[in-house]
Amino acid sequence: MRISQLSAASGVPIPTIKYYLREGLLPAGEQTAATRAEYGEPHLRRLRLIRALLEVGRLPVASIGQIIAAVEDEDTPVHEMLGTAHYALASPVDAGPDDREHQAALTRVDELIGDMGWSIAPEAPTRDELAQVLVRLDQLGMPAGDDGLRQYADLMMRLVSELEMHKIPFDGPRETAVESLVIGTVLYGRAFDVLRRLAQESESARILGGR
Amino acid sequence: MRISQLSAASGVPIPTIKYYLREGLLPAGEQTAATRAEYGEPHLRRLRLIRALLEVGRLPVASIGQIIAAVEDEDTPVHEMLGTAHYALASPVDAGPDDREHQAALTRVDELIGDMGWSIAPEAPTRDELAQVLVRLDQLGMPAGDDGLRQYADLMMRLVSELEMHKIPFDGPRETAVESLVIGTVLYGRAFDVLRRLAQESESARILGGR
Repeated sequence: MRISQLSAASGVPIPTIKYYLREGLLPAGEQTAATRAEYGEPHLRRLRLIRALLEVGRLPVASIGQIIAAVEDEDTPVHEMLGTAHYALASPVDAGPDDREHQAALTRVDELIGDMGWSIAPEAPTRDELAQVLVRLDQLGMPAGDDGLRQYADLMMRLVSELEMHKIPFDGPRETAVESLVIGTVLYGRAFDVLRRLAQESESARILGGR
Repeated sequence: MRISQLSAASGVPIPTIKYYLREGLLPAGEQTAATRAEYGEPHLRRLRLIRALLEVGRLPVASIGQIIAAVEDEDTPVHEMLGTAHYALASPVDAGPDDREHQAALTRVDELIGDMGWSIAPEAPTRDELAQVLVRLDQLGMPAGDDGLRQYADLMMRLVSELEMHKIPFDGPRETAVESLVIGTVLYGRAFDVLRRLAQESESARILGGR
């Protein structure tokens, strides 16, 4: 198809498609004449991935470039490719090795990871994210005990292993696996957050309704 | 204590305290001389609540004003006061009655609420938030089936009723209940999200490690 048809099929405006081509996010079409290139199904799928990363994951274009490089490099194992996408979804935490509160919280996070028997890379940004939440809960006088943390981790592990992971098509095309992971992580994460607040409202009504 | 001491004890700068006084977020101190006012424990507690709403809940000052009005009006029942705070934490959804996809998703949300036996106010913004997520999942080709949704809702209900709600001090001062609700909803929500991503990384390592 021509670029105008690719635009119509994907809903992405032509200037935006040209920008993705220049930035290397989208592979070039097959040149069929000096001013004409043909695009196909892989381009459509790639546009869908970019849209998911931008609109659902709210990732900056630079991070999207890194993820696409990992998708395109067939020598990158699938787990590492998914890790690149997953880590790009984390919120950066500004805490150095001199931040003693943060370091103490990181030790608790590592203990939890050990207790759960989880395989987590030492450079995973999620470790810092959880440590930051623990520090803030302490500062606000609502510390999370190790027992509570462990119970929450057990429940999340059940959610992920029983309901979530079998939805990722690990054996399909690399792009589809990354897309599912991003959409699943971000949109289902949002769904869980909303369901939790619905459950809170209902429980609050039940507890206070009788008074 | 004087305003300078209140500032030192709370960590909130004097000009910010004066701004909260002007906006009515903080009650006036007791005037002890023409240019001198005394502040006490309730002012410190109120500053802690404002800080939690601003920094943890990231709420705009106008929403904080509404929550504080509900805290101060002793005629507002506790459930309604908590509802005001809870609803202020929701993300506004831009979808009108003409949006057919959204209306269809709202019907599914109401069916889920009915199936769960949840007591949710008809004006709860969470209904629109969940409907929006369902519409986006559909659009991205990863629809959430009713069975899946129900399983997620069951798990969240367990989390909330078994682990979360007993932490809200419903019988304590009104401000403390609202503060716990905001901190619990926002910071524990963040903790669950991070724990879920840790579990995803570990499960992904386990599933792909054997290949």
